[in-house]
Amino acid sequence: MKKFNTVEKGAERYVTGTVEPYDQKNEMFKRPFWDPKVQKLGEKFYIEGVPPKDQPGYRLYDKSLVDASWTLENSFGGSITGDTMGMYSWEALKGFHDTPTQPGAKLSIDNPAVVTRQIKKAATFFGASLVGVCSLDRRWLYSSAFVMTREGPKIKEIDVPEDINSVIVIAIEMDYDAISHSPTSPSSGAVGLGYSKMAFTAGLLAQYIRKLGFKALPCGNDTGCSIPMAIDAGLGEMARNGLLITPEFGPRVRLAKIFTDMPLMHDKPIEFGVWDFCMICGKCADKCPSNSIVEGEPTVEPHNISNREGVHVWHINAETCFSFWAQNGTDCSNCIRVCPFNKPKGCLHDMVRWSINNLRWADRLMLWGDDIAGYGKQKDPDAFWI
Amino acid sequence: MKKFNTVEKGAERYVTGTVEPYDQKNEMFKRPFWDPKVQKLGEKFYIEGVPPKDQPGYRLYDKSLVDASWTLENSFGGSITGDTMGMYSWEALKGFHDTPTQPGAKLSIDNPAVVTRQIKKAATFFGASLVGVCSLDRRWLYSSAFVMTREGPKIKEIDVPEDINSVIVIAIEMDYDAISHSPTSPSSGAVGLGYSKMAFTAGLLAQYIRKLGFKALPCGNDTGCSIPMAIDAGLGEMARNGLLITPEFGPRVRLAKIFTDMPLMHDKPIEFGVWDFCMICGKCADKCPSNSIVEGEPTVEPHNISNREGVHVWHINAETCFSFWAQNGTDCSNCIRVCPFNKPKGCLHDMVRWSINNLRWADRLMLWGDDIAGYGKQKDPDAFWI
Repeated sequence: MKKFNTVEKGAERYVTGTVEPYDQKNEMFKRPFWDPKVQKLGEKFYIEGVPPKDQPGYRLYDKSLVDASWTLENSFGGSITGDTMGMYSWEALKGFHDTPTQPGAKLSIDNPAVVTRQIKKAATFFGASLVGVCSLDRRWLYSSAFVMTREGPKIKEIDVPEDINSVIVIAIEMDYDAISHSPTSPSSGAVGLGYSKMAFTAGLLAQYIRKLGFKALPCGNDTGCSIPMAIDAGLGEMARNGLLITPEFGPRVRLAKIFTDMPLMHDKPIEFGVWDFCMICGKCADKCPSNSIVEGEPTVEPHNISNREGVHVWHINAETCFSFWAQNGTDCSNCIRVCPFNKPKGCLHDMVRWSINNLRWADRLMLWGDDIAGYGKQKDPDAFWI
Repeated sequence: MKKFNTVEKGAERYVTGTVEPYDQKNEMFKRPFWDPKVQKLGEKFYIEGVPPKDQPGYRLYDKSLVDASWTLENSFGGSITGDTMGMYSWEALKGFHDTPTQPGAKLSIDNPAVVTRQIKKAATFFGASLVGVCSLDRRWLYSSAFVMTREGPKIKEIDVPEDINSVIVIAIEMDYDAISHSPTSPSSGAVGLGYSKMAFTAGLLAQYIRKLGFKALPCGNDTGCSIPMAIDAGLGEMARNGLLITPEFGPRVRLAKIFTDMPLMHDKPIEFGVWDFCMICGKCADKCPSNSIVEGEPTVEPHNISNREGVHVWHINAETCFSFWAQNGTDCSNCIRVCPFNKPKGCLHDMVRWSINNLRWADRLMLWGDDIAGYGKQKDPDAFWI
């Protein structure tokens, strides 16, 4: 089940014309800080919040799980704020207790295939659920960064040095059971935990690469769009819900990336039937509480400035999506929960994946099976704690 | 296999008289900073180091794995230095992106059993492999702390408030395969990764407890001895190799603890045959490269000031142990690697655990089986990377 069709075009396959680099200030979570259109929503989401209430999945012990899950990202990360401090530092991290190795040592690389295998092993050891490598396509870098600081937002230049030529993309699996409680707090906890794990794994892997004598710039959501890079690195395909679908976990992953000048072997993009399946499925659109996912065909038409122009995909309406988040006080993951590609490990699910990959005519049968088996239903949030 | 005999006495069962609180400055990793007897060893271990060499398990890419694995503990932890900064902060951690919940909220606890189950669920969700709870026995707190700072070591008072009455002890599993390469670098990487994961999980869990309105003081190796608290919390038993043996992972765990004033249910200590098995086994003593583990019976006699007086156990010679670490340039884990209780999951191993727990007469047979099956042998360090 590890074999998928490799294809020549990665993210390029969704491009219809010239794609201009995306300005990060247009990303939905940044707009409340400057765009009057969504300022009120931002106040609700970032400042006012939704207090705990006596309702399963929204009690104090539910909501506190979410808060705590973000701890590493929030306090020593910086993927969201984009200040590249903490675990996402672009410089070597110093600690009191650093083991003394050879300063200035540099790994001599005769065979990029061998070192790529080692980097992937280290990434997995440090917690990556999936890892792929691609060349750096600068179209996916932001035109400028929008950094949130305590003194207010700052526009920052994107400065990825010329000699950076590879991107290591890592995916971190989010907890299957917790996501099944979406849109209540346990699923939001899985999201926060995913961000904290991103910071952990990206930070350790970047430090590893630096110790080998190469540059390593770890990024979470900052610096550039993760999904096209993940597609280029062979981790998955674009889907109706606006997310990356991986063969192993469906859309139930978070993404981080490490830019490096290390000479690495690049993976090939893969294709395993997502586009065709999304065409007939539409469960995510059906179960989206804010109708932010389109029912029909992919288009090149953006909903608003948060969408990227020049790509032929199912564009998500981030404004209505964010509006539900702010009202509900959680990071909704319904479009992950209900996606038929979101399954725990198991040989039955491997068979279904094989069918979707190989027997396109059977897609409707598989979709029907998914309904019959009752997948994607929201679980009782109280059951999370038992 | 989840059921083990519970016993009344936890760490108390090893106590022969009055145990005086242990002064952390006598702990082996702290002594090089003040004790002339081991000063040279400390210089070798902490400052000079052992450069990479062209030998499996000691190459630059092996040794860099170790350095990188410590990143979170080293840069944003503090278990080793004991400065309770970073993830081990005893105060609420603040982040730019804190989700707004109810400030000053406090969970109303009618049933300690329910909240204890919730705390254990949160601990596991955040990465704990095992979790237990006990009452705080202040005999296991250090008499004073030895804190390593950039300005030199500092003696600090141990200040655990009077209303702290419970300890949540968490165990973090270390990678089975990596440990099997001990005493080379991959096993040292598993140790460093264990420390970084300790900081991650203890930090998130402490933040969770604070969000529920209670005090939470997360600790790694600092503040008090972890093993007696882990025994009190029902996680395992004391063994010949001076480590805690858990039923699930044997000695292949790292320990962290969170002190709290939350009203929690306390676990009972367990007993599953470790003492009797250690009496006839002695593999750790046999395979210790520095002969730091005794072959015979447990005693009350300390080797040197790094041992604790007043307990009847197999005392480890930490001076000779540390001497090997300094010479070899790794954190040796041979006594974990060869321990018959160190096994990956599997029903055959469950059967052996059942036998050791229930059929003491079969211990020698089990030990013989361990030899025949070839467990505990050092694996080729190059195989780690494949």
